[in-house]
Order: sequence, then C-alpha cells, then structure tokens
Amino acid sequence: MRIGIIGTGVVGQTLGSKLVSLGHQVTLGSRGKDNEKGLAWAGQAGPDGHTGTFAEAAAFGEVVLNATGGTVSLAALRAAGAEHLAGKLLIDVSNPLVFGPDGVTLDPGNTDSVGERIQREFPEARVVKALNTLNCALMVDPGKLAGEHNLFIAGNDPDAKADTVALLGEFGWPAGWIVDLGDITGARATEMMMPFWLRMMGHFGDAGFNYAFRRAE
Amino acid sequence: MRIGIIGTGVVGQTLGSKLVSLGHQVTLGSRGKDNEKGLAWAGQAGPDGHTGTFAEAAAFGEVVLNATGGTVSLAALRAAGAEHLAGKLLIDVSNPLVFGPDGVTLDPGNTDSVGERIQREFPEARVVKALNTLNCALMVDPGKLAGEHNLFIAGNDPDAKADTVALLGEFGWPAGWIVDLGDITGARATEMMMPFWLRMMGHFGDAGFNYAFRRAE
Repeated sequence: MRIGIIGTGVVGQTLGSKLVSLGHQVTLGSRGKDNEKGLAWAGQAGPDGHTGTFAEAAAFGEVVLNATGGTVSLAALRAAGAEHLAGKLLIDVSNPLVFGPDGVTLDPGNTDSVGERIQREFPEARVVKALNTLNCALMVDPGKLAGEHNLFIAGNDPDAKADTVALLGEFGWPAGWIVDLGDITGARATEMMMPFWLRMMGHFGDAGFNYAFRRAE
Repeated sequence: MRIGIIGTGVVGQTLGSKLVSLGHQVTLGSRGKDNEKGLAWAGQAGPDGHTGTFAEAAAFGEVVLNATGGTVSLAALRAAGAEHLAGKLLIDVSNPLVFGPDGVTLDPGNTDSVGERIQREFPEARVVKALNTLNCALMVDPGKLAGEHNLFIAGNDPDAKADTVALLGEFGWPAGWIVDLGDITGARATEMMMPFWLRMMGHFGDAGFNYAFRRAE
C-alpha cells in the first residue's frame, strides 16, 4: 500500500520505517522539499521510502497518517490539501501539547480536540484517532511489553476504523487489544490523557509503558 | 480516628460506611442538617456514623474527605470553613464533570483543577488528590479486581501523602499500588482522565474496572 505520513519527526520516522519494513511504500512529508530529517530518513529507508512536501505525501498515500504535533496539525493538513485527503483514511496520531511555565496544557483541550478539528475541517477525510496514547517505539512493536495492553481508536466511519485495526494488526496489535471509543469526539478523551501520561513517564523514568485494565474475575 | 466527609452522595456514603466498618468515627456533612441522604445513612451506619452540616463534619474530622461533585466543591468547603480545615489532611476525591449536549467537559479543566483550586483557597489545609480515578465501590475494596491495579495521589505535603497512603492501606490498597504523581498540579492530570474513564465505562458496560500498566519485562 502507498502511505503518506505528514510530519518527519521521530513519530513519523518510526511509523514510516515500520511501514517500509512491512512492505509498504511510504512518503514522509514536510513543509519544504529540502527538510533535513525527511531526506536523512529517506536516505536510509531504502527504495520504498520517499520524502516530499506535505502535499506530495498526502497525494502519494492511499492512507495518510498525521504525525505532526497537534498544535500545528491543522496548518500542516491545510498545506497537504483537502483534495489529497478526500475519501482517504486519515489516521491522526497527534497530541496538542503546550509546554509552559506552569506545566503542560492542551490546545485545544477539554471542549475540543485535534481529531475533531481535523474531521470538521476536512469532512471528506475519514479521520480515525489512534496511537496517540503511547510512545512511538511501542506503537510499532507492542510485543515489547509483557501481557495484554491497549490502544484506543475513535472516528465517525466504521470502515475507516476497521481499516485502522487491520493496519495496526500489521504492527502486531491483536484486534482484541484495540478499544473503539466511539465517534471522533472520543479523540478528546485520549488527548486529555496526555498530562497523566507525562506524569506516569516521570514516575517510571522512561516511556516504556502502556495502559492496561483490571476487571473483576 | 474522627473523619469528616463533605458530601452525602454515593461516594461519601460508600467511604463513610467503609471507614465506620474499619472502626473510625465518621460525620457525613451536607448543606443543611436535615439532609435526607445524610440522615438515612447515619440511621443505618450504627453509633459511629453521624451526620451534620458541612461545617460540623469538617470540625469533627481529624481528617476531612471532599466527596462532593467537583463543580460545587469550593462552595461546599467554604461553607465547611477554612478554620475547620487548617492543618488537616484534606483528601479531595472530586471530579468537575459537566454533562452537556456535546458530551462531558471539565470545569475547571486543562489549565486548572479542583485539587489545585482547593489548595490555593485553603492554603493551610494539607490537600491530597486521591481516589478520583475509579468507582467508589472499588475505592474501598480493591480486591474486587484481579491482579495489581493502581491509584494516583498528588499533593504538596509529603506527610499528608504518607497519611493518605496509610488510610488507603486500611481500605486494602498496598502502598506499592499507589503512584505519587507529585505536587497538587498532578490533580489536573487525573481529573482530565475522566472523559476517557467514562468512555471506557461505556466500553466495558459497567464501572468495575481500573487502570493498570504494562512494562517491558
């Protein structure tokens, strides 16, 4: 499959490398064609790894992943172009973190989310919020952790969510570990977990953890 | 120990009954002395269960628990009286949930929290945020769930947090299951998990679950 990734940071590169290793064609998109991180990634990704502008990456992909920071995602997707997103599965991995003197806040947060904003601004894209609740090394290798742990998806289009579960299955996620939180407003719920996640990273001392749940037996 | 509980709802009653069963003296406080829920609870709680006003409950307690809804907690604690909270451990169990036509939001949320507001308004109280991340039936009976699962505390006073861990130990929580998220700004992190928790309750179909974590082995 051809996959366009918006964003050349560590999340975009990690997802891109995994997808190439799985046999997909990937274009990592950045603001300008001469983005150093994008070029460096493509240089080591082999013949199936490409780099280009946001628009080129989105046009290339049958599926598009948003791996930009949540506070700049809308600007990046506008640059990618609504015409290159229409009808496509758009997996939104972003979190709108703002690190300020009083700690981390979300922009937007509480009454809105990046996932919802993207779906509102690009109504023809089939937006699924996913993967924004754990470190990117774990996104593409859930077996690094012992036992069942969970991912959360949210989106308005059931087929888009099913396609997302299938792609996550290629990463190693059993379908039964993926919790469907409902429509795209569920993005708000998972984005709002980030302040807690950051505290837990402080507690554990590293990002090598994920959520699980205990139930009555 | 004498414990004052601010709030006569199901959370306050559940905590009160457990504390009485553990041998503590409990006064459940409500806005007016003739609160039906408070009187009904005291009527079945035995000689160690009392009811009174917010101020009477706070004055009674060597430790005070805030079990009101987060959007009304400050008003309730003002009625309880700063002079009855000064120097005491004040365990804040609240979440500021607002159920609106577009779903649940927090008031305050994202840039502030009930826990922080309480500590700011009552600087002489030793506020610890705790127990606001799970159903009250599990707060007082963690053994209902199989395996290790976690609680989170936040507060500025290390001794107050140690006293909280000791009290939670009486409820059945091993100290090792309780994660210290740092100062009272950690309250923001756990209060912001509530929209997610509500989605997970929808997923599971009931409130009989709690958070756990997976780590690399």
